[in-house]
Amino acid sequence: MNLLIVGSVAYDTVETPFGKAEKALGGTATFGSVSASYFAKPGIVGVVGNDFDRKHINLLKKRGVDLEGLQVDPSGKTFHWSGYYEGDMNQAITRDTQLNVFESFQPTLPESYRKAPFLFLGNILPGLQLEVLDQMKDPELILCDSMNLWIETQPKELEKVFRRSDVICINDSEVRQFCNTSTISKAAKELLKLGATRVIIKLGGYGVQLYGKDTFFALPALPLSNVKDPTGAGDTFAGGFIGRLAKSRTLNENAFRRALATGTVMASYCVQDFSCRKTANLKPSDIEKRLTELKQITRWS
Amino acid sequence: MNLLIVGSVAYDTVETPFGKAEKALGGTATFGSVSASYFAKPGIVGVVGNDFDRKHINLLKKRGVDLEGLQVDPSGKTFHWSGYYEGDMNQAITRDTQLNVFESFQPTLPESYRKAPFLFLGNILPGLQLEVLDQMKDPELILCDSMNLWIETQPKELEKVFRRSDVICINDSEVRQFCNTSTISKAAKELLKLGATRVIIKLGGYGVQLYGKDTFFALPALPLSNVKDPTGAGDTFAGGFIGRLAKSRTLNENAFRRALATGTVMASYCVQDFSCRKTANLKPSDIEKRLTELKQITRWS
Repeated sequence: MNLLIVGSVAYDTVETPFGKAEKALGGTATFGSVSASYFAKPGIVGVVGNDFDRKHINLLKKRGVDLEGLQVDPSGKTFHWSGYYEGDMNQAITRDTQLNVFESFQPTLPESYRKAPFLFLGNILPGLQLEVLDQMKDPELILCDSMNLWIETQPKELEKVFRRSDVICINDSEVRQFCNTSTISKAAKELLKLGATRVIIKLGGYGVQLYGKDTFFALPALPLSNVKDPTGAGDTFAGGFIGRLAKSRTLNENAFRRALATGTVMASYCVQDFSCRKTANLKPSDIEKRLTELKQITRWS
Repeated sequence: MNLLIVGSVAYDTVETPFGKAEKALGGTATFGSVSASYFAKPGIVGVVGNDFDRKHINLLKKRGVDLEGLQVDPSGKTFHWSGYYEGDMNQAITRDTQLNVFESFQPTLPESYRKAPFLFLGNILPGLQLEVLDQMKDPELILCDSMNLWIETQPKELEKVFRRSDVICINDSEVRQFCNTSTISKAAKELLKLGATRVIIKLGGYGVQLYGKDTFFALPALPLSNVKDPTGAGDTFAGGFIGRLAKSRTLNENAFRRALATGTVMASYCVQDFSCRKTANLKPSDIEKRLTELKQITRWS
């Protein structure tokens, strides 16, 4: 286990213009670990309830995901999110959120997890993210994610998480909101001042940007004509990104760029089906193929 | 004269969170020809009124723009657009449009213009764009632009323009609207079916995409923390793009990509000040510098 991923394990009921999935496997730790599993040995910390299907445990095991840190809470049901997408599918609209066992989730790290060199702190309550950080023993790289809810309700706690992270992964509207500025590049530079070495801005279908102290890199998304469901794309991106870094253990600018490309490729597969149906069943050659494609569509002289 | 640009020559009164410009020089033919002038010998076809300032004629002349096709209509005033931008400045909000002499504009091409090998058909009434095409003698490359107004009110006429163009330049919301689909790549491919060899989708601050029959290329915008006024960015982009092609007279994929980069660089200068204050006063080394920067921020291996 060289990559710890902390976040939700969930059931998602999703409707898009291209279909519907009922109680499909989802959540940050799921999407992130499945994606990372092609490059690293991820372990997850999260919680599921008494309704969690054995076949989903098996799916994660089959991908080599360490489940020692996955708590099973028999007192309730698994976190269930229900929502839909319309039009260009850039924004999920929530119908219902049932936190269930996730409401009282306390991330407790098994001893073997505390020395993990790479940590992906998925989007959970910032106070819990800080508790995870307190349990870790000097990881090489901490990647954190968050969401608009915590920016609005817990900005101080969230800032503490940002200050302790090496890479902050956030989307364009969130970074604008957190930094209270309409210019993305200004906002990203403000975030960098908190101490992270890199800030990643996710732009959905427009790709992703990577800001460093004196560096900038931008990568488009792959052009897809068959996007079915964007749920989990951000977590899949983050999992591929940090998984690739955990594999190479190189943290220079080009390694970050390559990791960004890897995350982009993994996200491109994620959105082409519901849940992690596609990302759980890839061959290494599928990933290589799209990395080559991504290189071709960004090359010029 | 190796590049004909047809479009408005206007006065713009613009307000943004970063300042205001009163009756500043604007319009497609202006932004486009100033930008193209660094690479090609543009000539413009347009109309101005009795209030058009001599100093603006001189500005265009100084940039080497051929003005034989610029009509001066003494019966009225120059086209005047007034608008403002808020927040992330992605969308102009119109306060007032006074077409003035532009209302009865009839594009008549001087004999010497008709053999121009490159044509940028700026956004005017599709019927007028067709009249321009009828006057041209077999140009090597026709680039056309349009806007939501004509997509809504003149879709059939506009389709005729698209069918006769080699490169269609359009923004993301317009292409979605014209093709009635929410997926940009689907829409771009539908446009290609009309006969153009390339479709360019402008994504504002997110960059630009280039679709060919079997090719795709995406380029981010340069990260700017001091965007003052986006007015004219699209026309400046188009002018730089076709100017660069007119210079090289090479029309393969890499030439298109390089032209896209050139347009991107020109647009990056445009938005950093009102009107064409910045783009009218560049040194070739300024352009080279940003092309190098653009290369650096898009390179990975």
